[in-house]
Amino acid sequence: MTLKVAIAGVTGYSGEELLKILAYHPGVEITYVSAKQERSQKIQEIFPYLKGVLDLDCRVWDPEEACKAADMVFLSLPHSVSMASVPAVLKRGKKVIDISADYRFSEAGDYPRIYGFEHTDPVNLKQAVYGLPEMNRKAIGAARLLANPGCYPTGALLGLLPVHRMGLKLKSPCIIDAKSGVTGAGRKASKALMFPEVQENFRAYKVQAHPHEEEIKTHLGPVGWPGIAFVPHLLPVRRGILSTIYLQTEGPVIAEEVRKHAESIYAKEPFVRVLPEGSFPELAHVRGTNQCHIGIGFKERTQTLIVVTAIDNLQKGASGQAVQNMNIMCGLEETAGLR
Amino acid sequence: MTLKVAIAGVTGYSGEELLKILAYHPGVEITYVSAKQERSQKIQEIFPYLKGVLDLDCRVWDPEEACKAADMVFLSLPHSVSMASVPAVLKRGKKVIDISADYRFSEAGDYPRIYGFEHTDPVNLKQAVYGLPEMNRKAIGAARLLANPGCYPTGALLGLLPVHRMGLKLKSPCIIDAKSGVTGAGRKASKALMFPEVQENFRAYKVQAHPHEEEIKTHLGPVGWPGIAFVPHLLPVRRGILSTIYLQTEGPVIAEEVRKHAESIYAKEPFVRVLPEGSFPELAHVRGTNQCHIGIGFKERTQTLIVVTAIDNLQKGASGQAVQNMNIMCGLEETAGLR
Amino acid sequence: MTLKVAIAGVTGYSGEELLKILAYHPGVEITYVSAKQERSQKIQEIFPYLKGVLDLDCRVWDPEEACKAADMVFLSLPHSVSMASVPAVLKRGKKVIDISADYRFSEAGDYPRIYGFEHTDPVNLKQAVYGLPEMNRKAIGAARLLANPGCYPTGALLGLLPVHRMGLKLKSPCIIDAKSGVTGAGRKASKALMFPEVQENFRAYKVQAHPHEEEIKTHLGPVGWPGIAFVPHLLPVRRGILSTIYLQTEGPVIAEEVRKHAESIYAKEPFVRVLPEGSFPELAHVRGTNQCHIGIGFKERTQTLIVVTAIDNLQKGASGQAVQNMNIMCGLEETAGLR
Amino acid sequence: MTLKVAIAGVTGYSGEELLKILAYHPGVEITYVSAKQERSQKIQEIFPYLKGVLDLDCRVWDPEEACKAADMVFLSLPHSVSMASVPAVLKRGKKVIDISADYRFSEAGDYPRIYGFEHTDPVNLKQAVYGLPEMNRKAIGAARLLANPGCYPTGALLGLLPVHRMGLKLKSPCIIDAKSGVTGAGRKASKALMFPEVQENFRAYKVQAHPHEEEIKTHLGPVGWPGIAFVPHLLPVRRGILSTIYLQTEGPVIAEEVRKHAESIYAKEPFVRVLPEGSFPELAHVRGTNQCHIGIGFKERTQTLIVVTAIDNLQKGASGQAVQNMNIMCGLEETAGLR
Repeated sequence: MTLKVAIAGVTGYSGEELLKILAYHPGVEITYVSAKQERSQKIQEIFPYLKGVLDLDCRVWDPEEACKAADMVFLSLPHSVSMASVPAVLKRGKKVIDISADYRFSEAGDYPRIYGFEHTDPVNLKQAVYGLPEMNRKAIGAARLLANPGCYPTGALLGLLPVHRMGLKLKSPCIIDAKSGVTGAGRKASKALMFPEVQENFRAYKVQAHPHEEEIKTHLGPVGWPGIAFVPHLLPVRRGILSTIYLQTEGPVIAEEVRKHAESIYAKEPFVRVLPEGSFPELAHVRGTNQCHIGIGFKERTQTLIVVTAIDNLQKGASGQAVQNMNIMCGLEETAGLR
Repeated sequence: MTLKVAIAGVTGYSGEELLKILAYHPGVEITYVSAKQERSQKIQEIFPYLKGVLDLDCRVWDPEEACKAADMVFLSLPHSVSMASVPAVLKRGKKVIDISADYRFSEAGDYPRIYGFEHTDPVNLKQAVYGLPEMNRKAIGAARLLANPGCYPTGALLGLLPVHRMGLKLKSPCIIDAKSGVTGAGRKASKALMFPEVQENFRAYKVQAHPHEEEIKTHLGPVGWPGIAFVPHLLPVRRGILSTIYLQTEGPVIAEEVRKHAESIYAKEPFVRVLPEGSFPELAHVRGTNQCHIGIGFKERTQTLIVVTAIDNLQKGASGQAVQNMNIMCGLEETAGLR
Repeated sequence: MTLKVAIAGVTGYSGEELLKILAYHPGVEITYVSAKQERSQKIQEIFPYLKGVLDLDCRVWDPEEACKAADMVFLSLPHSVSMASVPAVLKRGKKVIDISADYRFSEAGDYPRIYGFEHTDPVNLKQAVYGLPEMNRKAIGAARLLANPGCYPTGALLGLLPVHRMGLKLKSPCIIDAKSGVTGAGRKASKALMFPEVQENFRAYKVQAHPHEEEIKTHLGPVGWPGIAFVPHLLPVRRGILSTIYLQTEGPVIAEEVRKHAESIYAKEPFVRVLPEGSFPELAHVRGTNQCHIGIGFKERTQTLIVVTAIDNLQKGASGQAVQNMNIMCGLEETAGLR
Repeated sequence: MTLKVAIAGVTGYSGEELLKILAYHPGVEITYVSAKQERSQKIQEIFPYLKGVLDLDCRVWDPEEACKAADMVFLSLPHSVSMASVPAVLKRGKKVIDISADYRFSEAGDYPRIYGFEHTDPVNLKQAVYGLPEMNRKAIGAARLLANPGCYPTGALLGLLPVHRMGLKLKSPCIIDAKSGVTGAGRKASKALMFPEVQENFRAYKVQAHPHEEEIKTHLGPVGWPGIAFVPHLLPVRRGILSTIYLQTEGPVIAEEVRKHAESIYAKEPFVRVLPEGSFPELAHVRGTNQCHIGIGFKERTQTLIVVTAIDNLQKGASGQAVQNMNIMCGLEETAGLR
């Protein structure tokens, strides 16, 4: 039996990636797509490479129409826009996967501080499930409203999970030095992201505060750590996030034990790979895949545990993970459409 | 009066950059250049853009000839190769600036562990001066043998100097997450540095240990810090190093004070600029210049002081700094040839 | 029934691409792979992303072993190396697809002039079929030895075929200005293809003569045109070839007619798309696909017909096309494994 | 004596490049700069790297103020905007160099067709001098209003000049296949020029018609050639234009003669270099310089003469050439500020 799906917002980078994955997903039929536009047009006119693959009108977003056409609705809309549509979809009994940040925090009160807007759908916040399968698979299976994780948090949390689960205590804040490709910033025209400004350049940004720092802290759970300091940087690449994480543990750490623990908790995960000793991930190895690669090292003299993770920000960091979540929510093979 | 200079090794990236700078230096005449090659050829044949600028034979390296032709000799040779030529140049009473790592550590015993070779010129090690002008200007002025700093150490030390000079104590190791362009690896053909391997890629390397970590520690001096953990990464850019430094200080830190201190110690430095609050450096702003830009931030909640520095690895990180050192050693205007 | 295939030379760019495509091909089992190396090792050690996908030893090339294990043998070996193995494979009754240039010309006498080597297998040259399906599908279906086309010729011939089939006469030589990504040059370490040499650079190369010019001429067939002038350029991208073709036809040309003709001859081709009026192809639209996009324009005042084609050099320009040929030769669905 | 100059429009790519060149020009003082902005601000706030180099207010454009402050006014304004200011500057007796296209055609009637606007200053069109020094040096010396050439025309005309001056006749249209870096498109935010759209991409654009095709034809003068077909492409690099020019001459051509002729007419040109036989230019060799490199080849079999030229589009293709023109117009050393 084929699952009917709708996608709102197919012309952003995440929306387009979602469309590409779902168009070839063996268990799915795309029955409705929308984009920010004046009027409907053929999806093949927007993405000529879909000619012969998908024949569908791309419409002006209408939740009611989407719910008539589909049983699962993906919202690939800007932050603060998704929450205006979620209630309408849930009311019609359809499942929702929201790729924006609108349901990643369960407290409505957090949104003004973190994202600068008031949350208009506090009721549904409570039932939203945070969609990191490696942490939350069971709850995801039962979810009706899924908050798909942010790209940076996905890479960071998958690296921190093993350390966290081992119950290692930290003597000082956990440092996350993260580097992302440009598609992470979305598809809006912006002078700062024009080719001549990014090529041969590199810089830190939002050093003081980034909403993803809050997301990482919130979803790592109560660990008693002295905090997390997250600094993002902009890489001159299209896709990919590499996070270098520095941890000063209390008491002696044996890196080998951390790696073994990581291997054990991820042993059955289809999309996480712990690299052998001395190996560290690189963006090229995860590009275009839904995988997260994890390398673990140890600086003897400073007793610093180092965890490096790499993901493709549009796959495991957004749309690939959304499809993985859909598969879990709808009882499909978890890897379907993602190989 | 014009200073006569010789350059050994002009076909590497540092050597070529040195040649370009010195060819337009108003107080210098290049009288001898060499490259690794079978026989002499015209320098304009190797670098056609020098036609009309420099008419010179590029020779097979011979320290004696170089000393006859010049009063200052630059060695832009591979690590462990420079030390075979330094004694010959010093014996003839000429000054040497060594761009390799061969004289950056004063203890001969450090070389086998750090670089994997036995030092064959321990005597001259003792008189070598480490050429970071912002730290060492006076000693540089008197030097006969100058060890030009490594690229990563230059960016790191200029960021750490203000904190160090304030006498701030750290509660945990100083983390230096550094990212370098590909010219930092030199001009040898290597599969891992071919265009298709680097483009759209990013990775950490030498995570466990890198000789530049030792160089930073050694030259920062006795600070009583709980160590320095340095992790380099390879950026898909030609030139530039950006270092993000994380410091957990004992007692309250006021970032504003650190910035003021940095502004004050660098106030008269021609090549260091401390950026205003909220601004952080980017590679594009230092590309092709001998400048180091420094941004200082503070993560309130984790009390993490963040120092970000950017340099051009071939200029301030190598050949620009070598020329700055030459200017100081030879009584020229410090900025001559570097604007 | 599953087709058993062997691949010689999996560590080059074409070989690796072939391996990636075939590993997910629904009708194929890879039973033998080899690489240039001292001794066998696990394929997952060479390409860690194959862990869980393919469990196989990567061996030192031995045609006899390959023929025991497989019914179809792909040779992704350097030019002049393939021809040493082809006879051994054919003798054992197995089919061969050769990705090198060794069987692209049917006259042994052409090789010294074009490629600088003597051909050692002139007998089998006669039975080799040139594997451009859009030109040669029937012969490909019957082939035992297939010469997979060069990357530039694939892009050029697909652009020229409609004009040629219309019987249009040219008043002056056909100009092909072609631009290729760096993987087209193979995976050998080379100073000229190091990242710092290619990034932010662009240049023409082999202006006077390139073997692919001969290949285009030979396979276009007797057209009575006043020659073809082909000039390749090196693009700072990993993958992709864009060819801009200039044609001065005798008598009036109606571009619209050429486009209609192109649409008609390619109407049933699964991998060729003729773009609508005013649209021209770009590398991004064919990246990672086996497609060729074709744009057709006309410069009114000079009466110049312009045909622009884009392909991914590792897919339609090499390994994707090789798989398409395998599908045809072995009676599989032509698009299998290539969507 | 120092020349006082004003620059209108310093925040575009050409304007910024002009500012950088003139800030270090030994014979020039920048006394007025403007940008499109709400109110004046310090130029060092816009371009922090100018701190210590240039201390000046960047103003809202006012021709009267500019003329009070300076004797030479550079207009680095958008097409159709410059012509509104030129009369005011000329009336005050000051010289103007216009970097836009507004004065490149002497016939007012050409502008609607080529650029889509009516020319509002037809009177001054007549006295404007087209500023390609290698073609027009004498007239430039006497000019009061200089139309600085377009980037593509500069690269094309310098390649065509030798052939043209030899009086070679063509049998078929001259083909110019040109490839430009992204700064050529200016600094306006545009989705199509965002980093993720350009990186790893390449495409032809404005295939049917580009105003620079008209500019090349107009300024090459009456040659009796059967037309020029110009097709521009967008390269994933920041700076640089490489033009590959194809010429079918009547009667036999000896490429060697063309090269000799080129060498002779450019022998005294400070910024044009004809490369030796078998050498062709590359962007890396002209990057950041005001040079044009020219390679000349010949395809024996098709009798096609091939001329390849490379320039930096912001230097010789715009602001470097503007300064060269200023030097000529004001009696300064032609190369001043451009080495």
